[in-house]
Amino acid sequence: MTAPAPLTTAEAVALLGATARGRAVAVRRLVDPAGLDGGASPGFPGDGTVVVVPRLDAAGWSRCRAAGVAAVVTVAAADADLPAPDAGDPARWLVADPRLALARLSRRLDARPPVAAVGVHPTAAIDPDARLGERVAIGPHAVVAAGAVLADDVVVGPGSCIGAGARLGRGTVLRERVVVADGVVIGERCLLQAGAVVGSDGFGFASGPRGAERIHQLGTVVLGDDVEVGANACVDRATLGATVVGDRSKLDNLVQVAHNVRLGTDVLVAGQAGIAGSTTVGDRVVLGGAAGIADHVRIGDDARIAGGAGVSKSVPAGEAWGGYPAQPIARWARERYLIGRLEAIWAFVKGRA
Amino acid sequence: MTAPAPLTTAEAVALLGATARGRAVAVRRLVDPAGLDGGASPGFPGDGTVVVVPRLDAAGWSRCRAAGVAAVVTVAAADADLPAPDAGDPARWLVADPRLALARLSRRLDARPPVAAVGVHPTAAIDPDARLGERVAIGPHAVVAAGAVLADDVVVGPGSCIGAGARLGRGTVLRERVVVADGVVIGERCLLQAGAVVGSDGFGFASGPRGAERIHQLGTVVLGDDVEVGANACVDRATLGATVVGDRSKLDNLVQVAHNVRLGTDVLVAGQAGIAGSTTVGDRVVLGGAAGIADHVRIGDDARIAGGAGVSKSVPAGEAWGGYPAQPIARWARERYLIGRLEAIWAFVKGRA
Amino acid sequence: MTAPAPLTTAEAVALLGATARGRAVAVRRLVDPAGLDGGASPGFPGDGTVVVVPRLDAAGWSRCRAAGVAAVVTVAAADADLPAPDAGDPARWLVADPRLALARLSRRLDARPPVAAVGVHPTAAIDPDARLGERVAIGPHAVVAAGAVLADDVVVGPGSCIGAGARLGRGTVLRERVVVADGVVIGERCLLQAGAVVGSDGFGFASGPRGAERIHQLGTVVLGDDVEVGANACVDRATLGATVVGDRSKLDNLVQVAHNVRLGTDVLVAGQAGIAGSTTVGDRVVLGGAAGIADHVRIGDDARIAGGAGVSKSVPAGEAWGGYPAQPIARWARERYLIGRLEAIWAFVKGRA
Repeated sequence: MTAPAPLTTAEAVALLGATARGRAVAVRRLVDPAGLDGGASPGFPGDGTVVVVPRLDAAGWSRCRAAGVAAVVTVAAADADLPAPDAGDPARWLVADPRLALARLSRRLDARPPVAAVGVHPTAAIDPDARLGERVAIGPHAVVAAGAVLADDVVVGPGSCIGAGARLGRGTVLRERVVVADGVVIGERCLLQAGAVVGSDGFGFASGPRGAERIHQLGTVVLGDDVEVGANACVDRATLGATVVGDRSKLDNLVQVAHNVRLGTDVLVAGQAGIAGSTTVGDRVVLGGAAGIADHVRIGDDARIAGGAGVSKSVPAGEAWGGYPAQPIARWARERYLIGRLEAIWAFVKGRA
Repeated sequence: MTAPAPLTTAEAVALLGATARGRAVAVRRLVDPAGLDGGASPGFPGDGTVVVVPRLDAAGWSRCRAAGVAAVVTVAAADADLPAPDAGDPARWLVADPRLALARLSRRLDARPPVAAVGVHPTAAIDPDARLGERVAIGPHAVVAAGAVLADDVVVGPGSCIGAGARLGRGTVLRERVVVADGVVIGERCLLQAGAVVGSDGFGFASGPRGAERIHQLGTVVLGDDVEVGANACVDRATLGATVVGDRSKLDNLVQVAHNVRLGTDVLVAGQAGIAGSTTVGDRVVLGGAAGIADHVRIGDDARIAGGAGVSKSVPAGEAWGGYPAQPIARWARERYLIGRLEAIWAFVKGRA
Repeated sequence: MTAPAPLTTAEAVALLGATARGRAVAVRRLVDPAGLDGGASPGFPGDGTVVVVPRLDAAGWSRCRAAGVAAVVTVAAADADLPAPDAGDPARWLVADPRLALARLSRRLDARPPVAAVGVHPTAAIDPDARLGERVAIGPHAVVAAGAVLADDVVVGPGSCIGAGARLGRGTVLRERVVVADGVVIGERCLLQAGAVVGSDGFGFASGPRGAERIHQLGTVVLGDDVEVGANACVDRATLGATVVGDRSKLDNLVQVAHNVRLGTDVLVAGQAGIAGSTTVGDRVVLGGAAGIADHVRIGDDARIAGGAGVSKSVPAGEAWGGYPAQPIARWARERYLIGRLEAIWAFVKGRA
């Protein structure tokens, strides 16, 4: 563990946009509120800890005091009903958005070891024709092929493979055993989880006289900045042109993005969802877990697709759809309601038939 | 192939709790009953083979004799109607549970080569600050980071990566290219299939002024004893605290277990099923293939979820649910029945409207 | 990039079975028709390019001329309404099947770098008891275990692992980090995408007195010729005997094929679909994305299963099924129609109850 520097009340106020109540403290560790009930969080409670409790009530406040945490972060709106912190009590840092505060504390107090030590591990196989920026870290048994370009501060985890001519933007991190195939272009500050594959061949065949003939996939993949790709998720290269994932879009584990898909910016794709070939997904779209989108359709900006939904046609911007086959959520709910009336309907029909 | 020692009738009686009929034999190889029909099993029939036929009838007995197997294992209840084995016939080993007998024979007669030869392959990258127990085997190009602790008899397959501070219990086996990320704790006698990822980051973001901000995942994963994780399956680390998989639970290929999920003991999760964040799954639960469970729900002990089901709310202990959205199986079946009456209902309504 | 030799009109006529109109040209690069509208294809338009426009109309022809492509491939039937190419115009290559022409052009003009340079990379860990044919290429950090046999022209990508006694047929290509476990048999000209796992253990357990006991999976996997396996897809080995994938069958990314499944020839399995244990799938079957097939059923030859369908029983040859639970497509459509009448039915019942 690489211990982060202590976070003081003054820094927390700036980092979180918080109002601080109670004593000035310094925290080193973010702990799980479940630990307040004697739960599983190792090492809890302890000195120098901070906990985020989205909406603190009197009972929660008692638990925080009993646990001896140094500071508790909660929504400002919940503070009015609580007693002021005493001299020995935890500090209270009041924020507008506890989840955003959690994100920032988690980053600031991240003590996890880096994926790879700074520098290039002696077992990494780096082609002499690859270009590495400043402070690039490459883990054991990683492979970087000819013509690959890694910008400053790129981290390549152990066993990851970077293909010929691929480009990784500044600060992008590949965890363990990631594949970035030849020619793929990845933006800045992206994070690819273990086992992710970017740039595998799209699934394209033509019927020939002796069975399917492969359509070679000559295109590429372009990921924008701040994109994340989950563990063992796959993004296929385009047949021609590029499969595109827009800035700040996040793909969860085991997601499939087929060839020639275009994902907009700020898209969230939950685990095991899949998007078939040549489909376009607008900005800020949210796909629930295991949702499936057919090929050659268009999901409009800000649309939301329920978990498990099977979308076989285009979805207008801003709409929420669910079901299999998917339809607008309100219509799906109405359909479920009417199906729930079938017992009464059937009794009525039987009684009069 | 590493030939196992021959299994004698006496040993089989003890191993399987069997009653032996016919001659005393010794077997070296467990063969596929499909091979009795001249099917695909290579090298079948042959001397020194044993076959498990769950319920042996006269025709099956004839095939076993013709094939020249040394012994046939079947359920005791099926034996009464068969002629006693003659001197040259296969032995019959009668058991209460042929499937359990199959499990034990398969283990006893496993001739597959070990994942990695005993010892540490010279190409493995072992940090000097990792601690290795007795008889640990580490395959080519595996990576073990600083602070990792591998108990006695651990096997790490080729290309597998073990992160900083991870701990593997005695006798745990990682096959090819497994990732156990930093800080993950794995119990004894676990088996992780090729490509499994344990300890990838949970999918957690907060909305910030410039798009999603990552919630760093500072927690870990704890797998109990005798846990199995399938090929290319993923278990995410918790945001804080731990994602937990209880003793003897088994995850099939391509399963997704999200952050902060708690799986009980003896849980079976079939291929491509997924469990979203912070959901609790009780003991002895069975999830069918591609079933999906929403986040923040609770699946009670002994519940059974049908393949393909989409569970969006909590399921009481002991219940069987199916459908999308999922509901109790009996209600789902009734709903399917009533939908099947719609043709008649519609005809009735049209006739009277 | 390894520039392919230019493709002349004469060669194209032979390769594509095309009728050529207009001037004789030579092309080096296949470009994306989306680029005709000033889209994403890098380097488009340009000299020496060919584009496939499945059905060319007057507007498309104008765009091709404006873009300066050297040749356009289109269906012969569309040509009658277009003006004859002038001297400076692109050539028109008329074919019966533009998609098949695309496949052949894509192969002929594939300029992607090979997965691994010819030869064995010095960091590959090749057991001295492995047998390698002529012109075998093995990438960095690949692992080939004892007794493995690689036929001529096999390519093993970086980080791929080949288990003891596995056999790869002539011309088979493994991309990055593929796992072919011990004893697996793969035919000729197969293509395994990054992260694919072939030969992981099937998911088989028996209930014992102290919980599940693993049924060791002693069988293997046999892939025919010209089989493709997608990125992070899994094919489990059989308990006994073999899991079989027939010639020319293609599995997309994240597909799961469980133990003892038998897939016929020319089967297409789209992304994230799964086939449970011991199920038989006939020849030329097509499974849509995320379709799930239960265990121990039979899908007849030429059956077609819709994306997202959940098949829980056998499907007769030649039928198209969809829905969850799946049923014949026409019945599913009728059911959806009748559910759409529920609003009227319910109003009728309420008005008379």
